[in-house]
Amino acid sequence: MRTQVVIVGAGPAGLLLSHLLGLEGIDSVLLERQTPEYVQARIRAGILEAGTVELLRDTGLGDRLDAEGMEHRGIHLQWPGNRHHLDFVDLTGRSVTVYGQTEVTKDLMAAREKAGRPAFYSASEVELHDVTGSPFVTFVDGDGHAQRIDADVVVGCDGFHGPSRDFVPRQQVWERAYPFAWLGVLADVAPSTDELIYAWHPDGFAMHSMRSPHVSRFYLQVAPDEDIARWSDDRIWTALSERLGVPGWTLHTGPITEKSVLPMRSFVTTPMRHGNLYLAGDAAHIVPPTGAKGLNLAVADVALLSTALTASFQGDDDLVDAYSETALRRVWRCTHFSWWMTSMLHRHGDDFDAQLQLSQLQRTVTSEAAATELANNYAGLPL
Amino acid sequence: MRTQVVIVGAGPAGLLLSHLLGLEGIDSVLLERQTPEYVQARIRAGILEAGTVELLRDTGLGDRLDAEGMEHRGIHLQWPGNRHHLDFVDLTGRSVTVYGQTEVTKDLMAAREKAGRPAFYSASEVELHDVTGSPFVTFVDGDGHAQRIDADVVVGCDGFHGPSRDFVPRQQVWERAYPFAWLGVLADVAPSTDELIYAWHPDGFAMHSMRSPHVSRFYLQVAPDEDIARWSDDRIWTALSERLGVPGWTLHTGPITEKSVLPMRSFVTTPMRHGNLYLAGDAAHIVPPTGAKGLNLAVADVALLSTALTASFQGDDDLVDAYSETALRRVWRCTHFSWWMTSMLHRHGDDFDAQLQLSQLQRTVTSEAAATELANNYAGLPL
Repeated sequence: MRTQVVIVGAGPAGLLLSHLLGLEGIDSVLLERQTPEYVQARIRAGILEAGTVELLRDTGLGDRLDAEGMEHRGIHLQWPGNRHHLDFVDLTGRSVTVYGQTEVTKDLMAAREKAGRPAFYSASEVELHDVTGSPFVTFVDGDGHAQRIDADVVVGCDGFHGPSRDFVPRQQVWERAYPFAWLGVLADVAPSTDELIYAWHPDGFAMHSMRSPHVSRFYLQVAPDEDIARWSDDRIWTALSERLGVPGWTLHTGPITEKSVLPMRSFVTTPMRHGNLYLAGDAAHIVPPTGAKGLNLAVADVALLSTALTASFQGDDDLVDAYSETALRRVWRCTHFSWWMTSMLHRHGDDFDAQLQLSQLQRTVTSEAAATELANNYAGLPL
Repeated sequence: MRTQVVIVGAGPAGLLLSHLLGLEGIDSVLLERQTPEYVQARIRAGILEAGTVELLRDTGLGDRLDAEGMEHRGIHLQWPGNRHHLDFVDLTGRSVTVYGQTEVTKDLMAAREKAGRPAFYSASEVELHDVTGSPFVTFVDGDGHAQRIDADVVVGCDGFHGPSRDFVPRQQVWERAYPFAWLGVLADVAPSTDELIYAWHPDGFAMHSMRSPHVSRFYLQVAPDEDIARWSDDRIWTALSERLGVPGWTLHTGPITEKSVLPMRSFVTTPMRHGNLYLAGDAAHIVPPTGAKGLNLAVADVALLSTALTASFQGDDDLVDAYSETALRRVWRCTHFSWWMTSMLHRHGDDFDAQLQLSQLQRTVTSEAAATELANNYAGLPL
C-alpha cells in the first residue's frame, strides 16, 4: 500500500491533520493502536482557543461545535474571600469555547468516514523505516495481518507514549515533573458557575470546569502518588466546597460518574523533524493542564504542518525546513504559560512562595497589563 | 530631651522622614550608629522611580537631582545575540532617573543641617522603651554620654540589622535566600551604554549600570560564598565582555575602584507597627537589587508614614491604624516584582528553567502587555 502521508496516531491531532491534508488533495492513512470506541471515549481537554474554533469552522467542522459549544468570555480567578472575573473579550477581543476533546474527536471521525480516508485501528507493532530516505511503516493490523505502507512523509501524532519520537536521533529533551497531581472528577450536575473557576487555596488548587449544561468537571490538587481510594465522593464534595467557596455562593453536588488522578508534567523534545518524519502534538511536547494549552497546541502544530507539507508537495520546502523552529516558538510560549499558571495556582514550596502567588493573583486582577498578558495567552495567540 | 518623633537610623529613609515631618511642622530627632561620613559614602542603589523623583522635587530636594541626575527612558533586556530596549515612557508615560543613593543622602543631610534638625551620630546601645505607652529611647552618644529622648512616636528606619524590629512582638516573617550573589564593581570609565543593560547569559546574569557620565557600575552573578580574591580586574573585564557582549558593541574598560560581593535576599516582616513604634524601609523588608526597588520602597514607606503621622498629630488616627496594611500592599508588589526580575535573569535550577527564562524574556520584548507590566513595576506605582 502506498500513500503520501502516513499519520501515526488517530487522536485529535492525527485526525485533524488528515482532514486538513485531505482538503488540499493530499492522501493520508491513519494508524491507531486503540479502537475507535476507545479513542472517542478518552476524556481530556475541553477548552478551545479562539483560533482553534476558527480553524475548525473554516474547514467544515463547525456545525455541532456552534450548536453545542459554550462560548466563554473569560475565567474566574479566585483566592480565599476573592473571586474576580477576567473578561478576555474586553481585554483581547477573543473568547474561548468549552467543547470537549471527545466531541472534537467525534466530529473529526465523522469527517474522516464521510471523506473515505483510510484508517487502521487496533494497529500494533508499529515500526518506522528509512525516514530519511523513502519511508515506510510496518505494523500488524486489527485482524493480525502484517502490513506495510510506503509514503513520502510520516507524521507522529502518537502522543507521549507513542513509538514515533524514538525514530528522531539526538533529541534534546527538557522535562519537569511537578510535585502534585490533579484529582479529576466528572459529575452529573449542572455547573454552579457560568465560566471556569481557577482557585488558589491553602489546602491546594481547585478548579470548577464543565462539559455541558448538565455535566460538571472538577479538579483538586493532590499528591502525585495520591491513592484515589482515599477520596470518597463525600470527601471530594467537602474539599471542593471548601476550596471553591466564597461567601454567597453555593456549590451544587450530584452523582460522581468518573474520578481519576492525572499527573502533571512539562516535556519538550527537539527537533520536531528528522528527514521525512515529523512530530506533532503530545508526541513532541506535554504541558500541564492548567491553562488548557495541550489540545490547542496540537492543533497549532498540525495547522502549521499541513500548510508546510502542502507547499512541500508543490515543490517549495521552505516551510517544512522551518517547521521545527517555527512550531517550537509557540511550544515554548505555551510551555512557559502553562508552567506559569500552574506555578501561580498550586500550593508548593514555602510560605514565601504562597505570598508571591497571592501577590501575583492580586496583581493579575488589578493591572490591565497583567490581565491582558494572561488573557492573550489563554485565549491563544494567532495560528 | 523630648521630641515628637524619634527616628532610629539616618540613612535615606530616616533622613527623608525627618525632612517630610519637618515640612509639616513636626519635630524629630535622628539617631544613627555610624558617622555622617560613613553614611554618606555607603554605595547602594542608584535608580529612582518617577514617583520618588517627584516627591524629592516637590519637597525642595530637586536642585542637584535635576542638574546631575540622568533621566532614562527605559532599560535594555538582553540574552545571547539579542539586545532589546524597553521604553518605559512609551509604555507607561513614566521614566526613571539614575542618581546614586549617596547623592540623595548628601542632599538630605544638607537639608537637615539647613533646617537645624538634631541628629546624634555614632550612637550606640540604642534601646527602645514603653513603645505601646509613652515611648522613650536610650543610647550612648558619640561622646560616651548616656542619653534619653522621650517622644510620642518612635520610627525604626535602621535597616535589616538595626535594633528596632526586635521591639515588635509576634512578628510574622517571610524570607528567601537566593542561591547566588552579585559581584559589584565600580570603575572609572564612561558607560558603554546609554541606559542600563540587564543581561541573561549561560554563565550567569550580568548588568551594566552607571553612577555618572564618567563612572560605570557593573554586576556579575557569582556564588553566594564567592571568594572575591578570585576575581582579578582582568577576570572581571573578561566576564563582563563575555556576558554583556552583542555583535557590534564594545565594552570600554577602565580602572576598577571598588569591588564587593552583595548577598541577595528577600525578607518581609509584619506588622510594620506596634503601638507607637513604626518600621519603615529595610528594617521591615529587603528585596534583591534586581529591579531597583529597595530605596524606592523605603521612600514610599516614609511618604506614607509622614502623611499618616501628620494626620495622627492632628487627631485623626485612621491612616496610622492602616499604615502597616497599606504599606504592605506595595511591599508585596515590589517583593514579587524583585523576585520575578531576579528569577528571570539569574541562572539557577536546570535547563528547563533556562528555557522558561528565555521564553519569558522573548515574550517581554514582543508582547506589549508583558512589556507594560514590567515597565509599570520598574518605573514605579504611584506613591
